Amino acid sequence: MNNAKSNDSRRKRFTVRHSGYRSGPRKQNGNTANHSQKPAPQPPKKREAHRTPIRIIPLGGLNEIGKNMTVFECCNDMFILDCGLAFPDADMPGVDIVLPDFTYVERNADKLRGIIITHGHEDHIGGLAYLLKKVSAPVYGSGMAIGLIKHKLEEHGMLGKVSLNVMEPRKTVKLGCMAVEFIKVNHSIPGAMGMAIHTPAGVLVHTGDFKVDFTPIDGGPIDLARFGELGSRGVLALMTDSTNAERPGYTQSEHKVGESFEKLFTKAGQRRIIIATFSSNIHRVQQIINLAARNGRKVAVLGRSMINVISTALELGYLEVPKNTIIDIENMNQYPPEQIVLITTGSQGEPMSALTRMAMNDHKKVNITPMDFIIISATPIPGNEKHVTKVVNELLRSGAEVVYEAMYEVHVSGHACQEELKLMMALTRPKYFIPVHGEYKHLIKARNIALEMGIPQDNIIIGSIGNVIETDGTFMRVVSQVPAGRVLVDGLGVGDVGSIVLRDRKHLAEDGLIIVVVGIEKASNTIVAGPDIISRGFVYVREAEELMVQAKQVMCHTLDACSVYELKEWTSLKTKLRDALSDFIYSKTKRSPMILPIIMEI
Amino acid sequence: MNNAKSNDSRRKRFTVRHSGYRSGPRKQNGNTANHSQKPAPQPPKKREAHRTPIRIIPLGGLNEIGKNMTVFECCNDMFILDCGLAFPDADMPGVDIVLPDFTYVERNADKLRGIIITHGHEDHIGGLAYLLKKVSAPVYGSGMAIGLIKHKLEEHGMLGKVSLNVMEPRKTVKLGCMAVEFIKVNHSIPGAMGMAIHTPAGVLVHTGDFKVDFTPIDGGPIDLARFGELGSRGVLALMTDSTNAERPGYTQSEHKVGESFEKLFTKAGQRRIIIATFSSNIHRVQQIINLAARNGRKVAVLGRSMINVISTALELGYLEVPKNTIIDIENMNQYPPEQIVLITTGSQGEPMSALTRMAMNDHKKVNITPMDFIIISATPIPGNEKHVTKVVNELLRSGAEVVYEAMYEVHVSGHACQEELKLMMALTRPKYFIPVHGEYKHLIKARNIALEMGIPQDNIIIGSIGNVIETDGTFMRVVSQVPAGRVLVDGLGVGDVGSIVLRDRKHLAEDGLIIVVVGIEKASNTIVAGPDIISRGFVYVREAEELMVQAKQVMCHTLDACSVYELKEWTSLKTKLRDALSDFIYSKTKRSPMILPIIMEI
Repeated sequence: MNNAKSNDSRRKRFTVRHSGYRSGPRKQNGNTANHSQKPAPQPPKKREAHRTPIRIIPLGGLNEIGKNMTVFECCNDMFILDCGLAFPDADMPGVDIVLPDFTYVERNADKLRGIIITHGHEDHIGGLAYLLKKVSAPVYGSGMAIGLIKHKLEEHGMLGKVSLNVMEPRKTVKLGCMAVEFIKVNHSIPGAMGMAIHTPAGVLVHTGDFKVDFTPIDGGPIDLARFGELGSRGVLALMTDSTNAERPGYTQSEHKVGESFEKLFTKAGQRRIIIATFSSNIHRVQQIINLAARNGRKVAVLGRSMINVISTALELGYLEVPKNTIIDIENMNQYPPEQIVLITTGSQGEPMSALTRMAMNDHKKVNITPMDFIIISATPIPGNEKHVTKVVNELLRSGAEVVYEAMYEVHVSGHACQEELKLMMALTRPKYFIPVHGEYKHLIKARNIALEMGIPQDNIIIGSIGNVIETDGTFMRVVSQVPAGRVLVDGLGVGDVGSIVLRDRKHLAEDGLIIVVVGIEKASNTIVAGPDIISRGFVYVREAEELMVQAKQVMCHTLDACSVYELKEWTSLKTKLRDALSDFIYSKTKRSPMILPIIMEI
Repeated sequence: MNNAKSNDSRRKRFTVRHSGYRSGPRKQNGNTANHSQKPAPQPPKKREAHRTPIRIIPLGGLNEIGKNMTVFECCNDMFILDCGLAFPDADMPGVDIVLPDFTYVERNADKLRGIIITHGHEDHIGGLAYLLKKVSAPVYGSGMAIGLIKHKLEEHGMLGKVSLNVMEPRKTVKLGCMAVEFIKVNHSIPGAMGMAIHTPAGVLVHTGDFKVDFTPIDGGPIDLARFGELGSRGVLALMTDSTNAERPGYTQSEHKVGESFEKLFTKAGQRRIIIATFSSNIHRVQQIINLAARNGRKVAVLGRSMINVISTALELGYLEVPKNTIIDIENMNQYPPEQIVLITTGSQGEPMSALTRMAMNDHKKVNITPMDFIIISATPIPGNEKHVTKVVNELLRSGAEVVYEAMYEVHVSGHACQEELKLMMALTRPKYFIPVHGEYKHLIKARNIALEMGIPQDNIIIGSIGNVIETDGTFMRVVSQVPAGRVLVDGLGVGDVGSIVLRDRKHLAEDGLIIVVVGIEKASNTIVAGPDIISRGFVYVREAEELMVQAKQVMCHTLDACSVYELKEWTSLKTKLRDALSDFIYSKTKRSPMILPIIMEI
């Protein structure tokens, strides 16, 4: 596409001089974490060989989708950008959520000046309450993000204990020797922000999760002008959302969904309309409410998170509802189907969600009939396809019409596609490029786009969590490593489920368990009880009695063959029992259940 | 799209008279399961109010993708169409494969005249060896299908014990009072057939898995003419593959993939090319081999199933390989990368497949480097997305280029899209329509297409497995139900893992297990050993010592509080111990591990 020559000339464009924002000495700042209401001062245009280096330390969000968290450090100051959670994979049975490893932050808690939030999605704020139990710092974010964080802190009994600060676009907060400027971006939640991080080494731009929507529902497109201004003055490094780096073209405007809904409202005719979508997609909810009002339909809302988010958005003015449009779900049945739109959670087929319970005929308040027209306004997140299909099948079985395919355009992504990434690179003209928010394949795709845009390979860093990426403006490289990984939350336990527990859970799930219990009198080394055999998750014992009788015989023979000395050595005795039973079971069934010998001392 | 009038006129087109194929009396037939080499005789054109009814009994493949199996019954004769397996869902941990329930066939084994195979995919032949251990019948299929079945029977030590019969297109086999005619269709495996089932009640057409490919690799497009001829003479019922009923338009020709490969071979340049695809897609393998030969590359083959299928296809003449093109994998390293194409299994990211092992740097013979250009020529089957992503990430990490997106058109489906289903309906003009091979949502979509084509709603049956669908040509309805469901295979066990075992496995996987062992002397009802506490998959015990100590105390207190009488009643004592420990653990952790009290009699 580009010949070598044009590549070269472009490369030149990106190697403009970079000048860092230099804060005054710390002492003069007084408060190290106050936020000014003026736009960030522009850096003086002075060349310097070496400036105070800064360190970028991703603790989550690289080589994974989820638990986004990045530490920025300079001199004795540190701040955190986002603190999200991830949802467990199939190989983490029983795990509720996954957090970043906070060790590095805890060890440097005295340096922490603040926590910056790009937007209120779970993968950006879901770990915050856990972090704030361990360290203390003021939190800065848009009204919407702070509103959602308040809910989270309340759940953890921490409301009032944390300084929460609402930031407007183009406003800056000073965090020690760094300053963070909030820049409006478009995304699938209101109040999403990118950041310009002004540091002694230069300006870093972090897009947060973003897309370019020229006709967003709230009327405010991404502040491309400010990104351009920063680029024109010199951006040291760009960090971009890489989620959609595999997709060519542009992500469609949220408006597109409204147009599809309009047609579907007509198609629904006299039927009740039920729309499942992400609770945080307030712009979509706004479009549904507007359409409902225009079509003489009332709106009822179902699902805990949907009710939470909508009430937060209403309180904060992110959502405008015509009078008498929203009704209580309890009053829904007072209206005929053609006068109702029901907005609900469950677009991912989550087993406990309202839509799934409706589909399974297990919802107290909503009964699905052929008079329902159901729109699933979402694309299944990888791993959820089968859940969604199950829900669709069951809804169809109740006679409802269900719209769920991509062909109806009932969903658009919240993330930038390839051409939008190019636009962001062209505006910010960064010297260095660090793709973030993606699996390895997404980061590589984003890198390839940057290469096409003329950023030299050596100036692109594909990082890993725990990497310490250092730059003083003249270089950028990974200089060391800090502790990073995943901390599993199961019930109240944070971090007490690790790899050994997971390995055991997977083994138990695959093949079940056989327990052998033997009672040995310690004094005489004689067997006084057992061997007894108990199994779970292995075979249906009533239909495998013979196998279990034989297994018991194998244990008896093994014990009989033991000398008195061997009966003393319980560790090796257990191994002997385990091996004998394991061999027997495998020979009979070609299965390898967990075998648990228990010796009781009498 | 269609106004009411044109719909009506179309409806008329489909209500042409239907005349059934009437075999002579059984006695004259002599052999009830011989296959003639003449085309099926055309039915006499005579109207009849009531003919001998036939029964269609799906035992798998409805409301699911997998384990396709249908019984056709008439008078005292029965035959089976396909006998496939399904792969287990995430909610069946440890299960290897899923079979249909054969109970009904076993009970009617004396009626069974034969087993007809549409094509050699696992979901159509994978259950055959298990069925043939229980009942005996000759098997009829294309050369390719029979070749693959031979492999299966060999694995089960049954080769030579089953009559295997190769059928050519347009040839018919008589099965008692019914006759089955094989009709060539296109699909993602050679030798795929649809069937015209000539019965006393009329002609049934079953498409098998099909697509319409006007430029297939083997030169033979689907026999649309024969489907049209049948339709012209009167088809009682059509059963179609509904897999792609959600997708508008036409499925692309397999040729398209060859065109994409051609471009990618150029793009690969001096690098080694590795292509992962389904082993059974011999047409794709043929295209790869042709391209390799043209580009001066040798072809090496990796993966057990790939080697099996390719050698079967070679033997049977389904694959043509220019001399000296295929080399042994052992000799691969004698050639420079630009002279090699490696064809491998693992396009679904299967954990044990060759490609996955290469990605994980765990393959003995292949080491991935930046000199590799890898094409994943498949779309992830729902549920496999995360596996495939993991493999892609790891391959990229080794520096290889990996092509996997839809945008490169490196894969086309083997199933008919909406317009192809319409074409099939227009050709066969059936009176009744039974969509098969799909989840409920697919069956409903296929029904909607049939409605659009003018087939009346009452003439469409959305069935379930176990339904007995009866027709005498003047009606078609579900008249009763036979046993049907899923039989799980785990290791050597067929059917010994049921819902209780699965429930236990899931519980163990989610929350792990705590065992409480107590030794009680029966004579005196005194506790002489324990209580001891052992856990697996619950918490990492070394880091939760205090919790386990407290749990033991709870058990001690519970036992102390028991009267001598209570110590006698072991069932209620176990419940008491379980409840007390369960409450304690939940209060401390908000988790509910399986609790297993074991009382040993001393």
